[in-house]
Amino acid sequence: MDASRPAARLHVAVVGSGHAEAEECEQAARLGRALAEGGAVVVCGGLGGVMEAACRGARDGGGMSLGILPGDDRGAANAFVDVAVATAMGEGRNVLVVRNADAIVAVGGEFGTLSEMALALQAGIPVVGLGTWELAKGGRTVDPVLRAISPEEAADMALAEAARRRRALR
Amino acid sequence: MDASRPAARLHVAVVGSGHAEAEECEQAARLGRALAEGGAVVVCGGLGGVMEAACRGARDGGGMSLGILPGDDRGAANAFVDVAVATAMGEGRNVLVVRNADAIVAVGGEFGTLSEMALALQAGIPVVGLGTWELAKGGRTVDPVLRAISPEEAADMALAEAARRRRALR
Amino acid sequence: MDASRPAARLHVAVVGSGHAEAEECEQAARLGRALAEGGAVVVCGGLGGVMEAACRGARDGGGMSLGILPGDDRGAANAFVDVAVATAMGEGRNVLVVRNADAIVAVGGEFGTLSEMALALQAGIPVVGLGTWELAKGGRTVDPVLRAISPEEAADMALAEAARRRRALR
Amino acid sequence: MDASRPAARLHVAVVGSGHAEAEECEQAARLGRALAEGGAVVVCGGLGGVMEAACRGARDGGGMSLGILPGDDRGAANAFVDVAVATAMGEGRNVLVVRNADAIVAVGGEFGTLSEMALALQAGIPVVGLGTWELAKGGRTVDPVLRAISPEEAADMALAEAARRRRALR
Repeated sequence: MDASRPAARLHVAVVGSGHAEAEECEQAARLGRALAEGGAVVVCGGLGGVMEAACRGARDGGGMSLGILPGDDRGAANAFVDVAVATAMGEGRNVLVVRNADAIVAVGGEFGTLSEMALALQAGIPVVGLGTWELAKGGRTVDPVLRAISPEEAADMALAEAARRRRALR
Repeated sequence: MDASRPAARLHVAVVGSGHAEAEECEQAARLGRALAEGGAVVVCGGLGGVMEAACRGARDGGGMSLGILPGDDRGAANAFVDVAVATAMGEGRNVLVVRNADAIVAVGGEFGTLSEMALALQAGIPVVGLGTWELAKGGRTVDPVLRAISPEEAADMALAEAARRRRALR
Repeated sequence: MDASRPAARLHVAVVGSGHAEAEECEQAARLGRALAEGGAVVVCGGLGGVMEAACRGARDGGGMSLGILPGDDRGAANAFVDVAVATAMGEGRNVLVVRNADAIVAVGGEFGTLSEMALALQAGIPVVGLGTWELAKGGRTVDPVLRAISPEEAADMALAEAARRRRALR
Repeated sequence: MDASRPAARLHVAVVGSGHAEAEECEQAARLGRALAEGGAVVVCGGLGGVMEAACRGARDGGGMSLGILPGDDRGAANAFVDVAVATAMGEGRNVLVVRNADAIVAVGGEFGTLSEMALALQAGIPVVGLGTWELAKGGRTVDPVLRAISPEEAADMALAEAARRRRALR
């Protein structure tokens, strides 16, 4: 793991359903682990399902996770969140999850996940997808999402994109 | 126009690009007009393109518009916004646009529009689409959006859905 | 009343307790009326007590009120709010009340009112006080608040300060 | 230092001016150190002056700091912030600083600090003061702030109050 203070490391958000099934959670855990081993802080919405699995993976990988919660009590964070931030902004916290990522990876997901993908795309933050939403307009595919076929590939893509973005911001 | 105070009327948000081309703006203006004639307050992001056209339509229809702005000065609202709210929340204001609608209509649109559609769907707020994003997962269409083929039909659908939602909330 | 669209008029926020006693409410009603007669939109937190009285006064004065609510349903606004905005930001909505004012008047008030006074002072927005908080540091009075002795004087001071601020922003 | 994950530790916010003079910064550094030695995460606004000194102190005490920033880039955090959260909410981030504290300590400070004290008092979060604002109404002192005479005493008071509050929330 990167030994520097967390704020100086790459941040990658893992977004997905709080009620995901076992397979997606397994993917999220492998993803969180690979991101942590790659030196990134794992950012998420701090609750269950994909979020919890990603935090567990980050811990297994020797890294840290930052959970940005919808409610007003950090005690609602899942048990693997290292640093929890309570927002009391409801789903408005999705905006903060995205804003604190240099890249995001969407794992499956429902409409909340779609909102985070859209907010990231709008802000120019790279989005990697693993079995997640596909977009079209007028019957024509529009795909600004980098598609990965495994959690490890998703982590590699996200780490590369996040590093590129940080360099561009400097 | 409904003579009651605006807060008691139906609220319908019109979301779309701030840099839309003439045809989409023409549709948004007809939509804003039909919504106002139907008694609804037109909510939008307060800037140009589709937002400005919808506000202009609302005025032509004898109604009123509420513009929820990303910046910190209400002076940045387009010239047809009746009541402007400055948020200084950047694109986080998308959450507030959606929260203040009983139904939304998406006209074309880019990623910001997609984020508003997703936030509405997540919150259970009905979404009507006019030439806007289409969604799929795993190659299979997922379409929670009510598709309209004209601005007037979109207004009718949105007014009906908004009324249904208000009744359900009471 | 100023016939222009509301967004183009001066905005003055009235802040105070949601559980104020009759005398403060009476003052708030006279204040809301005087502000409306002076052409300003009355901004407030949209709930009861001082907020409700100010909205009632604004209506009596032929003006309009904008209520920025802590919850997620505009139906929670008091019955005199003309335009209601639901934020679901809890007391974080205090920031939005202040941001949408060219000047604020504090009537009595508890800690929430103090937070709005402080947020306004921090943002350089003029603050008029009517029987409200007094500040000191190290035993020495620090008084950046313009003190009024009647609601009508408070309205005059706030309208003058709000007009000065709008001119400075242009 | 408490070895548990940060989210499970007490959180104490240190609020004060970003442009404080040397003496206040010296106090903030001693305060941050004492809080860290007491096992608390030090929360602050992430910028300079009192905030930076508190983070430096937390590091010297073997603890960690969480900086909640007004802007949209965590790169703006001072060099001693361990975990930075970018909000792009401007001074609206004051609400989040307070919400993430089990108690706050105000060191000197300007109007922004006063807003954080007021927001905390409104939310029932204990406030300890070190050479900071004093409050009155109608010429009569209202002092809901626990006054400390040294940074170490302030830390002791804040740790005790924070622990009491956490227990009450469970």
